[in-house]
Amino acid sequence: MPHLSRKAAEMPASPIRKLMPYANIARAAGKNILHLNIGQPDIKTPEVVLERMKNIKREVIEYSSSEGFPEYRTKLSAYYKKHGIPVETEHIMITTGGSEALTFTMMTCFDPGDEVIIPEPYYANYSGFSTMAGVTVQPITATIKNGFALPKAEAFERLINEKTKGILICNPGNPTGYLYSKEEIQAIADLCRTHDLYLIADEVYREFCYDGAQPFSAFNLKDMDENTILIDSVSKRYSMCGARIGALITRNKAVYNAAMKFAQARLSPPTFGQIAAEAALETPQSYFDDVITEYSGRRDFLVDGLNKIPGVFCPKPSGAFYCMAQLPIDSSDKFCQWLLEDFSFENETVMLAPGSGFYITKGQGEQEVRLAYVLNKEDLRRALIILEKALEAYSGRTI
Amino acid sequence: MPHLSRKAAEMPASPIRKLMPYANIARAAGKNILHLNIGQPDIKTPEVVLERMKNIKREVIEYSSSEGFPEYRTKLSAYYKKHGIPVETEHIMITTGGSEALTFTMMTCFDPGDEVIIPEPYYANYSGFSTMAGVTVQPITATIKNGFALPKAEAFERLINEKTKGILICNPGNPTGYLYSKEEIQAIADLCRTHDLYLIADEVYREFCYDGAQPFSAFNLKDMDENTILIDSVSKRYSMCGARIGALITRNKAVYNAAMKFAQARLSPPTFGQIAAEAALETPQSYFDDVITEYSGRRDFLVDGLNKIPGVFCPKPSGAFYCMAQLPIDSSDKFCQWLLEDFSFENETVMLAPGSGFYITKGQGEQEVRLAYVLNKEDLRRALIILEKALEAYSGRTI
Ligand SMILES: Cc1ncc(COP(=O)(O)O)c(C=O)c1O
Ligand SMILES: Cc1ncc(COP(=O)(O)O)c(C=O)c1O
Repeated sequence: MPHLSRKAAEMPASPIRKLMPYANIARAAGKNILHLNIGQPDIKTPEVVLERMKNIKREVIEYSSSEGFPEYRTKLSAYYKKHGIPVETEHIMITTGGSEALTFTMMTCFDPGDEVIIPEPYYANYSGFSTMAGVTVQPITATIKNGFALPKAEAFERLINEKTKGILICNPGNPTGYLYSKEEIQAIADLCRTHDLYLIADEVYREFCYDGAQPFSAFNLKDMDENTILIDSVSKRYSMCGARIGALITRNKAVYNAAMKFAQARLSPPTFGQIAAEAALETPQSYFDDVITEYSGRRDFLVDGLNKIPGVFCPKPSGAFYCMAQLPIDSSDKFCQWLLEDFSFENETVMLAPGSGFYITKGQGEQEVRLAYVLNKEDLRRALIILEKALEAYSGRTI
Repeated sequence: MPHLSRKAAEMPASPIRKLMPYANIARAAGKNILHLNIGQPDIKTPEVVLERMKNIKREVIEYSSSEGFPEYRTKLSAYYKKHGIPVETEHIMITTGGSEALTFTMMTCFDPGDEVIIPEPYYANYSGFSTMAGVTVQPITATIKNGFALPKAEAFERLINEKTKGILICNPGNPTGYLYSKEEIQAIADLCRTHDLYLIADEVYREFCYDGAQPFSAFNLKDMDENTILIDSVSKRYSMCGARIGALITRNKAVYNAAMKFAQARLSPPTFGQIAAEAALETPQSYFDDVITEYSGRRDFLVDGLNKIPGVFCPKPSGAFYCMAQLPIDSSDKFCQWLLEDFSFENETVMLAPGSGFYITKGQGEQEVRLAYVLNKEDLRRALIILEKALEAYSGRTI
């Protein structure tokens, strides 16, 4: 039998996938599972999008240009400007989800063996994209007790060596929900300028900011045109993850042109998805207002509820729709598995994402879990009760 | 300024892209361009697909499973069985176009430095996917005078060394239109078994076979379950390239599971595209009959017309919608550029794909061009006249 590649062996399996067999066991046992483990919002896709799809006039569903339909890119540039981010049409390359934008970026900017610094805990698939490009992730640990604020510049400096080629941040963050301040972003930019590093800024949760907080986009940094690459996506913004439309955005022409060669090899991003994404730009402000009201209500409810459970600590995040909670447990992997396999309360249990899956430093995240508040309040209320009961019953409880 | 990766530098620019500036010059000069250079069919997408898109009932456009919607995969398995190809649901991974299936295959099966043998001329983007995985292409030249038949087993044997890990074929072929016989496929299979190589069979043009020719699928090979990976796509079959739906199909569980890790990292293939592709499975036979009648009529018209032009030779292909023609010219790159930049007949010119772009052996293809018969007969008629006049006028004419 022919061999598999080393990359295939090294590709990390997602932390949530590992739990799937246990979710099946829970289901087979007739338990209802409350899914707080996924990043798939329950919010409806905007009506303008669904309506637009009913009125496609094209008779041939053709490839678009490799960089995306010009009309969509032009309108998207206007979207950014409206949000105070000066993005021109020629800076925008439409990709198949933010995922593909990240893959292109890794392949374009880094050689195998190069290093990229990523504050952990981080979106687990960054590890996969890095593996695909043969890039090594240097994690820099942000701590839950600081609410996952950016580690100090000195901590970055200690990691930077001749192999370091970039820093990747997610703002607002998945899994932390943490929103970097302008000062924090500027501190990273200073590091990038000093050490000639790319700054890859994943801002796919841009519009999920609460309590009136304003996100500061890396694209607004001064003297960073050659360094900054913005990653964006319509997946979460319009609750249309299945459209598979994202963007790689940069003012660095050499990066843009090089990334275009990868884009051309795969021909084009999805045509239907681009039609949907273009329509989504007409989503009324009321949609976002409702979504923000809904999510911030859920966040308050969930985070406050978590902090009331003995031994649990959860910093209140300002963005995205996730939070990381510290639990009095021996191992988040074991606990999350046990919740599915062995526990139920009133025939129901919760599925959480083990914190360890968002760190690559060994031992980190063992006392943490990520909760996505993509469920309505009534479900969240029951989830909190289940979690409290579970922590009482769990044999691996530490305090 | 931060550096670009070596991969980005090595990524080939597509042979057609290089002509784009000259196409712009031609357009600016007010010339009409007949595009015989592209693989974008002009055929209408089936009505069942366009209708289905008007009736999407989903309210949230969610991610699908990373391997694609189960219903679609199940129905797709039935499609293959109907075509005499025993593909089970669990062999099928839905991908974002055949392009992504090729990328996943390269990443899963080959390590950087490994070699894959590909008969040339071949689909130019195979080079790009190989570069992405750090794989070296070993070309084996098929010749136009043999109508691009498969080179002899001995020629393959001479190329195989300890780095060789696979053979990639395209059947029916782009750019040749050549349809491999069962015996030719079996000869490749023998090589793969003997040398423990993967056989990657790109069969995206399966349904474009003329004169009653029946394609022999690599998935029908005996004792090749561990070696064979099928690449498929709905792009050409239903003239819906923009749907971006393809498939990676294999009975090799280790390959499937490893490829799944890449699939999971990018979350899911397009949801709209899968809805369209599922609907496309209900396309009536009459649609295909019409398409085949249309294409085979165009092929006859074009190929016969080419062979009537003094100095031109074009073998008649049995499949796909391309043909390679040998022209009495010094350089296909120069000629194709000149056609756009300097030539016109009755204010019209033709855009062709230079043959050199489909070979990686230096010097090959200089006298060849690829023509895609994705235009109606009236356009083809004018294209033939323009080509004849152009060859009379071209200063780099060789005979
Ligand atoms: C931080 C972050 N970046 C990127 C993505 C990729 O999403 P998509 O490929 O759907 O745009 C996700 C999805 O969950 C994410 O959480
Ligand atoms: C031989 C061959 N394989 C694969 C593809 C990829 O097509 P897609 O990604 O649209 O499925 C093409 C497109 O032209 C092709 O000609």
